[in-house]
Amino acid sequence: MFFASDNGAGASPKVIRAVADAFQSGPAIAYGDDDLTRAVERRFCELFEREVAVFLLASGTATNALALAHVTPPWGAIYAHEVSHAHATECGATEFYVGAKFVPVAGPGGKVTPEALAAKVRRANRGNPHSVQPATVTITNLTECGTLYRAEEIAALSEICRREGMRLHLDGARFANAVAATGASPAEMTWRAGVDVMSFGATKNGAITAEAVVFFDPALADGFIYRRMRGGHLLSKMRFVSAQFEAWLEAEHWLDLARHSNAMAARLASGLQGLGYRLAWPAEGNEVFPILPAAVAQALRARGLRFHGGNPDALAEPLRPGETIARLIPSFATTPEEVDELLALLTEIGRPAQAAE
Amino acid sequence: MFFASDNGAGASPKVIRAVADAFQSGPAIAYGDDDLTRAVERRFCELFEREVAVFLLASGTATNALALAHVTPPWGAIYAHEVSHAHATECGATEFYVGAKFVPVAGPGGKVTPEALAAKVRRANRGNPHSVQPATVTITNLTECGTLYRAEEIAALSEICRREGMRLHLDGARFANAVAATGASPAEMTWRAGVDVMSFGATKNGAITAEAVVFFDPALADGFIYRRMRGGHLLSKMRFVSAQFEAWLEAEHWLDLARHSNAMAARLASGLQGLGYRLAWPAEGNEVFPILPAAVAQALRARGLRFHGGNPDALAEPLRPGETIARLIPSFATTPEEVDELLALLTEIGRPAQAAE
Amino acid sequence: MFFASDNGAGASPKVIRAVADAFQSGPAIAYGDDDLTRAVERRFCELFEREVAVFLLASGTATNALALAHVTPPWGAIYAHEVSHAHATECGATEFYVGAKFVPVAGPGGKVTPEALAAKVRRANRGNPHSVQPATVTITNLTECGTLYRAEEIAALSEICRREGMRLHLDGARFANAVAATGASPAEMTWRAGVDVMSFGATKNGAITAEAVVFFDPALADGFIYRRMRGGHLLSKMRFVSAQFEAWLEAEHWLDLARHSNAMAARLASGLQGLGYRLAWPAEGNEVFPILPAAVAQALRARGLRFHGGNPDALAEPLRPGETIARLIPSFATTPEEVDELLALLTEIGRPAQAAE
Amino acid sequence: MFFASDNGAGASPKVIRAVADAFQSGPAIAYGDDDLTRAVERRFCELFEREVAVFLLASGTATNALALAHVTPPWGAIYAHEVSHAHATECGATEFYVGAKFVPVAGPGGKVTPEALAAKVRRANRGNPHSVQPATVTITNLTECGTLYRAEEIAALSEICRREGMRLHLDGARFANAVAATGASPAEMTWRAGVDVMSFGATKNGAITAEAVVFFDPALADGFIYRRMRGGHLLSKMRFVSAQFEAWLEAEHWLDLARHSNAMAARLASGLQGLGYRLAWPAEGNEVFPILPAAVAQALRARGLRFHGGNPDALAEPLRPGETIARLIPSFATTPEEVDELLALLTEIGRPAQAAE
Repeated sequence: MFFASDNGAGASPKVIRAVADAFQSGPAIAYGDDDLTRAVERRFCELFEREVAVFLLASGTATNALALAHVTPPWGAIYAHEVSHAHATECGATEFYVGAKFVPVAGPGGKVTPEALAAKVRRANRGNPHSVQPATVTITNLTECGTLYRAEEIAALSEICRREGMRLHLDGARFANAVAATGASPAEMTWRAGVDVMSFGATKNGAITAEAVVFFDPALADGFIYRRMRGGHLLSKMRFVSAQFEAWLEAEHWLDLARHSNAMAARLASGLQGLGYRLAWPAEGNEVFPILPAAVAQALRARGLRFHGGNPDALAEPLRPGETIARLIPSFATTPEEVDELLALLTEIGRPAQAAE
Repeated sequence: MFFASDNGAGASPKVIRAVADAFQSGPAIAYGDDDLTRAVERRFCELFEREVAVFLLASGTATNALALAHVTPPWGAIYAHEVSHAHATECGATEFYVGAKFVPVAGPGGKVTPEALAAKVRRANRGNPHSVQPATVTITNLTECGTLYRAEEIAALSEICRREGMRLHLDGARFANAVAATGASPAEMTWRAGVDVMSFGATKNGAITAEAVVFFDPALADGFIYRRMRGGHLLSKMRFVSAQFEAWLEAEHWLDLARHSNAMAARLASGLQGLGYRLAWPAEGNEVFPILPAAVAQALRARGLRFHGGNPDALAEPLRPGETIARLIPSFATTPEEVDELLALLTEIGRPAQAAE
Repeated sequence: MFFASDNGAGASPKVIRAVADAFQSGPAIAYGDDDLTRAVERRFCELFEREVAVFLLASGTATNALALAHVTPPWGAIYAHEVSHAHATECGATEFYVGAKFVPVAGPGGKVTPEALAAKVRRANRGNPHSVQPATVTITNLTECGTLYRAEEIAALSEICRREGMRLHLDGARFANAVAATGASPAEMTWRAGVDVMSFGATKNGAITAEAVVFFDPALADGFIYRRMRGGHLLSKMRFVSAQFEAWLEAEHWLDLARHSNAMAARLASGLQGLGYRLAWPAEGNEVFPILPAAVAQALRARGLRFHGGNPDALAEPLRPGETIARLIPSFATTPEEVDELLALLTEIGRPAQAAE
Repeated sequence: MFFASDNGAGASPKVIRAVADAFQSGPAIAYGDDDLTRAVERRFCELFEREVAVFLLASGTATNALALAHVTPPWGAIYAHEVSHAHATECGATEFYVGAKFVPVAGPGGKVTPEALAAKVRRANRGNPHSVQPATVTITNLTECGTLYRAEEIAALSEICRREGMRLHLDGARFANAVAATGASPAEMTWRAGVDVMSFGATKNGAITAEAVVFFDPALADGFIYRRMRGGHLLSKMRFVSAQFEAWLEAEHWLDLARHSNAMAARLASGLQGLGYRLAWPAEGNEVFPILPAAVAQALRARGLRFHGGNPDALAEPLRPGETIARLIPSFATTPEEVDELLALLTEIGRPAQAAE
């Protein structure tokens, strides 16, 4: 039973086939100057219902670091949730790429609220050379806690950005899950809500390894081709990424994959609650964070369940003694049977009260 | 007819199948903590007949920049041939990763000679804080001009490195072609000749996109996992690269692929010389650089041949008026028929003398 | 009345005279290769009772950034108090110089406690490439809150550093005040307590602009001359800094200056408490932080007192409504009359209870 | 006898007095928010006959690195003479500050010619992400070879900059000598000739240590206060630099100092030529580069003359065997007697022909 991460899943057969086809179909000019890549770039424009500048690459950390570096001056402050991937789990990649400073924002469920953001920005020493200057806000949707920003919540944040002269970046490593969960369009979830630039991830949702930086105002992307190259992120056989995106975006395949993992998460969350477990945060996409007695978590591990822990920093109220947060992430490939097997295992291990004894 | 680059080729069916298999075979822990990746790491140790530290990634520019950054202090001088990829064609990636300064070394055929290197190092102002300090030498094998360093030539350079307290880096984007051409072992072509760290490329020679940084003294790699991560080059679905290397390294497949492209280059070079064209540099691997009348080059382009130009900086004597260098690079996928078709086209266009009229 | 900062004071006549003499006494080889600079380097060794490597420069921010950059890998975590100058008030200089990430540590009075430090280090994901790795601890003595680390407190922190493989840096912008206040020797307050490298500031305590980076293990300084140069901090007319240090260090002049400003702070603190004001933190050196009704603070400003505010983040308990922290910093040049004038002004403005009405 | 560098001279008594006065005259708000600094900023506007944005600091290397970093993107190419200080003698400071790549331009006398510049720019691969992109040209006036750009020569370079979308930076470490030598106004020698930003040095010409970055379009300076701070170049006791500039700029003192050192250089050059020595380059300012038999150079050193060597790279024709270039730099403090003493010493040592025997 594998619930460690959607990163750990294989890839959608459709995506695998597309890559195989691309690489069996003869030569193409390298470094993205090929027909397939151009087709995918157009596909992104259609998807977002506007002219966008899109840059393909293979790494999600790189999309965040490059995008943030491109819209933030070296002396900028980047406001991010304290548990956000870009700030907390990328080993300082953004600092490496631009040198700017993260200003962590706290808040339950991994979400930056307008109030918390505004409070932090108010404390900035604008114009004082001793202080980094408000420049960028980055949010993750789906968040690292499995919660969701709806379009109007994003708009509320972007309103602060506009007022304060800041850019809004969206880490969309699980953007598909957010779009699938809300039913809103990609446009509504991004530029119509005021997002300036996003990291658009396919890897976690059925691709092999395919990521994109999307600038909603193409003028903002000026020079980005050089920045990507200098970071070593311009792939010579670019069509490797392009082929994945083409197959993944075709006929709502990406949304179908996300709908499935979201459904598996809902099944899991509901089963867990039926067993008497409470969730650290609402399971609004494909991430489920039950609070478990440590003994139960241990027993699950002993029985072969692969999973990581969740970050207690984003809890509204602290864990009780002996409790731990499990992070369970169904993927596009998770089956209902696997979910049920996990729930059955939990039943077998015993109800929380018993396990805690 | 496609002779633009081996980067433009597709991928070996065996490699494609390995990737497809890996991604259809269920989940695996992300970020390289998986069995396949560990197997490939062991495979590299066998290949080089010693304990090595190997780090997989997807981009050749990144392997150069990360490897050079790891063995060079920010105030270091990196000696490189003036036409080398790391210095001339990576948009300052190494400067971005470490801040050091390239000291270009001239020389015919893209090769750094011991004499030229020693002369440059002699001019360094050792101990003077106004000057970058001799730190690293990087060579490319196969070179960007299609020439070859033999093991003893590498040893002569590494002797200077040892004497001067410098590290020796090898850009092995076409290492397979060099190994295949010399018949020497990977160990002889690297650490036995004094190479400290190398960029080992599979992409140009039949992989989809697979590169590795190999440290021959594992202690030298200390901290590299963080450097790779900060650059955004730790892939979550790492087995994508591992699967390629496993298939590519198995049963000398990588050498078979290189032997083929080398053979196609030899056929092409010999055909060109038979037609009366001289080569800018000897075609010792899979790159062929005929000197063509500009009119012939134009005619070839008009007839659909895809190719780039060569860099005249590395010529021993300048081009004559009206001449140009063509860069023709057969790949693992190039067929004898394609080579012959190109030669036939040249015959049809006319002999140099006629074309130049 | 000027209590804004010891940075705002002029300079000790002795220091001024030394600079004037140095620059009227004929030529000297530039960039620190002069007799005066060498004499000062020896003087530092005597002062610290051991061989040290010392590098002179003109900027305090630069000493911190360069020193931290030299002992921290780019992927390092630097533990610092959340109100520390290096983290909070240098516009990301350290991030620029090395790229590492500050991990802020909270605590009353601007001091890092062993417990708080150990708790933060325990949360580091050692060996996980997604996380910056524990590398360096930086403390400020005198702190930004006017409190003091005694030698044994520093030793307790350095013990954690030794155990965890981290370096200990001391920001000594007001080191003279700390030494004067404790009566301990410079050696006791630094390397004997486990400090690896320090920023030694003279500017705030009577110099014109003179700072030094001191490595207590000279081997640790290897390469620092290049780092300083690359930052643009190797002054051609180096003796400008050397002359200041020579005069300032001679015959305990530096300690006399600090003893004076400390005494002025004690007089001020005692006077404030006599007037019924409580202090945010004990005034252990030359910084005094009374908690004032906002109306009183305003009245003081209106009457011409120059001062900045203190950072409430380092309070053990929050301010009451209507309260503010004033930061009053006597310098070497502050007279008892100025202190008394300020106290008289406060009396005139009215006692806190009245002012708050 | 000291001819090693104008950096090695003391300082003008007027400048020394101004610093002493500033630091004896009571407190001032730190970090440049003081009256004296504001007065100097206005003084620069008058000097250049237009609104300029001026930033004071203490280091010449820093002015170059910060100014170039501010007008160059990280992927920019900076065209500079191969012997220029910023490229060849600052240990990669500019690379550290921005990451861009110098493209060295050759040419006799240390001057970038329009032809050489245009030829280099023509070779740039515009729009190709593998190549750094033409961004900035930097020239030094006086040059490192003692030659001079006249206003019309600067205009010819700036015309290329305009056409190619590049910025023009002027390293004015010896700007005073250039202005004094040409008789042109500061405005004519800079923005009227198309210079965008300059490093304005006073240190080499009678100041203690005082440098400035001047942006001729203040809008171009946006954000520079943060960049200077992050580099550690915002001095707390800023008036130290301001006081020097105020005294130095007053009543043409700066030009008087430069006229004197220029005159000493002229006296020296003419004396050398009278003795039969030829100059490597015309002595147009205060730097004199006689070509000496190595034996003569050695004899001078043995007799106590302090001087450095010149860079033969900038010679139009190579040195003959046994020859060397001496770099003799009179300063504002050099006396006619010292010049004559040097010439007498040379006479005593013997004429070149004899010495070479």
